[in-house]
Amino acid sequence: MLSPQTKIIDIGKKHIDDYIFDAIVSFNEGIDEIIIKGRGDFISKAVDVYRILKDKLGDSIELVNVEIGSERFRGRRRSYIAIRVRRKY
Amino acid sequence: MLSPQTKIIDIGKKHIDDYIFDAIVSFNEGIDEIIIKGRGDFISKAVDVYRILKDKLGDSIELVNVEIGSERFRGRRRSYIAIRVRRKY
Repeated sequence: MLSPQTKIIDIGKKHIDDYIFDAIVSFNEGIDEIIIKGRGDFISKAVDVYRILKDKLGDSIELVNVEIGSERFRGRRRSYIAIRVRRKY
Repeated sequence: MLSPQTKIIDIGKKHIDDYIFDAIVSFNEGIDEIIIKGRGDFISKAVDVYRILKDKLGDSIELVNVEIGSERFRGRRRSYIAIRVRRKY
């Protein structure tokens, strides 16, 4: 494949293990990059997802970058975090 | 001054405006860089502090980098975010 495949994992109300599992399965299926995205109160949970994922996968993944910003949601602005993680091998 | 002055603002239970105010006063007093640090559930609030500060100060500040990681706290690991912001002029 010429361009890396990227998957966005939106963090919400599901149990944190569901997101970890989703990420691991995606990497196993050949996805190269995952963006863990958390909005509003789910920003903290997104960072937890990254931390646990890093614990589980260790050096086989690397943090590419962390973006923070805001976007419109129902007429209000809401903060978000986008944590980009790459599979190394 | 030869080396830039850095101040860490630890985000906790106080009203969000208190942290914004603290940051603005610090920049006005000559601090060059502020690290907005949030741990655990306060990570989301730290990103909000950055967003509101950026709204208020606009181009006079810039985001240097965003670090995420974890640290020991009372025998458990806890995620954190460190948002480094620099005064441009």
